Amino acid sequence: MINKMVDRINRSFESQTMMKTLGARIHNIEKGSVSIEAPILPSTLQQQGYGHAGLTFSIGDSAAGYSALTLLPEDQEVMTAEIKINLLAPAEGELLLAEGKVVKSGKRLVVVTSKINALNNGQTKLIAIIQGTMVTVRMKS
Amino acid sequence: MINKMVDRINRSFESQTMMKTLGARIHNIEKGSVSIEAPILPSTLQQQGYGHAGLTFSIGDSAAGYSALTLLPEDQEVMTAEIKINLLAPAEGELLLAEGKVVKSGKRLVVVTSKINALNNGQTKLIAIIQGTMVTVRMKS
Amino acid sequence: MINKMVDRINRSFESQTMMKTLGARIHNIEKGSVSIEAPILPSTLQQQGYGHAGLTFSIGDSAAGYSALTLLPEDQEVMTAEIKINLLAPAEGELLLAEGKVVKSGKRLVVVTSKINALNNGQTKLIAIIQGTMVTVRMKS
Amino acid sequence: MINKMVDRINRSFESQTMMKTLGARIHNIEKGSVSIEAPILPSTLQQQGYGHAGLTFSIGDSAAGYSALTLLPEDQEVMTAEIKINLLAPAEGELLLAEGKVVKSGKRLVVVTSKINALNNGQTKLIAIIQGTMVTVRMKS
Repeated sequence: MINKMVDRINRSFESQTMMKTLGARIHNIEKGSVSIEAPILPSTLQQQGYGHAGLTFSIGDSAAGYSALTLLPEDQEVMTAEIKINLLAPAEGELLLAEGKVVKSGKRLVVVTSKINALNNGQTKLIAIIQGTMVTVRMKS
Repeated sequence: MINKMVDRINRSFESQTMMKTLGARIHNIEKGSVSIEAPILPSTLQQQGYGHAGLTFSIGDSAAGYSALTLLPEDQEVMTAEIKINLLAPAEGELLLAEGKVVKSGKRLVVVTSKINALNNGQTKLIAIIQGTMVTVRMKS
Repeated sequence: MINKMVDRINRSFESQTMMKTLGARIHNIEKGSVSIEAPILPSTLQQQGYGHAGLTFSIGDSAAGYSALTLLPEDQEVMTAEIKINLLAPAEGELLLAEGKVVKSGKRLVVVTSKINALNNGQTKLIAIIQGTMVTVRMKS
Repeated sequence: MINKMVDRINRSFESQTMMKTLGARIHNIEKGSVSIEAPILPSTLQQQGYGHAGLTFSIGDSAAGYSALTLLPEDQEVMTAEIKINLLAPAEGELLLAEGKVVKSGKRLVVVTSKINALNNGQTKLIAIIQGTMVTVRMKS
């Protein structure tokens, strides 16, 4: 059961070419929570040399979306309806880690949060928080 | 005056490696409004083959941020404090165009919006709207 | 047709005791857009003597929700799924006017915005903007 | 020190006439976290007879704002810059309890969250979550 869910998420993740472009990887999958990590690459920076907000958003959104997916039946997918992100500190360091979590899982809407930490020289720093809504969609078979 | 502002934004944009990775370009710059376009590349897709929400967010955020910058003194920069994005439709087509606009420019905070349209076979479709806050920061000289 | 919609919204509005408590009234109803006004009462202030953010939010939320309702079949209601409000200036003056608008009307979700202006000595000032999501619900008959 | 802070918040709270109108009271004050409760009064309902979203927002916003205030020097106040609220369930029951918390306290911006629970027949249910930004302002003396 768990394995099926993990397979499904891994397969979906592999098909997101954006995740490959960002160098992102799934870090952990459990019921109601998925975490995704990404290095801060020379190719994903903003103008001051920190990781781009789009990088932080992308892995935070994905972690939240897959967290929602872990609680849904197999014939359903999720799409992001809306995301609010507060940026707390520059994305500085070697690696970003986004931890998604389901707050409320409904039939049509799943409310989610993510925390994104930066790992810099062995130090972990919270750099962004996300609060959003995923909408469930029935997959075409 | 305008030329100086345009130069400054172009220079800043060039130094964002993320924008290069996404294939993004500045489309237009005027006082209080900047628009940025990006193709939907094979390398920036989500799992269903549409443009990734991270792509939509990245150019919407940049368009909003540079819109704010057009109204600030030269010794100031902006950073994104927070962004809310509502996704209205899949990012489908050849090109995304994000139009940023300043709603309220204060000394410390600049409130901004963006609209992101997809161009698909000659048709334009609104796919996302953004409402956010930029914070002004004095540049180190 | 229009009259039926107007009746329905007026009836719903009358049953919101919060609106009475805030002194709010419907200002205008048309397809896709509803506006609501409220005085800044001595009983709805914050600690500096301006109108409370909860007042601004309440009428902005209602204006947005009823805007969504104007585009739905009669057997459906809306509930607020989420709202983001940016406060631009203190709520100062005699009256607040919230203008809601539908940005995208879907089967399950309706994306909405509101602008809230304060009228102060004959001057109009934008004090808040809202971007949110309404979810459609079938009414029990 | 703590007493001074508690006094200050109590005084500020008393001067918010909106809080009186909603029947709200401070429930708890500690460094970085303030909680506020309010009954679901006959005068603060929406059209289906549940507590109005404006009630939930108002106490969630206040709890978040006072949480920020607990970490600031005495010559500073806060104002809400922006709030995002996700409504998870109807506000049903006798009482709402909003617990605010500071996520990141900066010189100019304080990022905050609130959780709002409804107490219904001895049962507690999470009905809303808030993620927002407070801006610090120097008080006029």
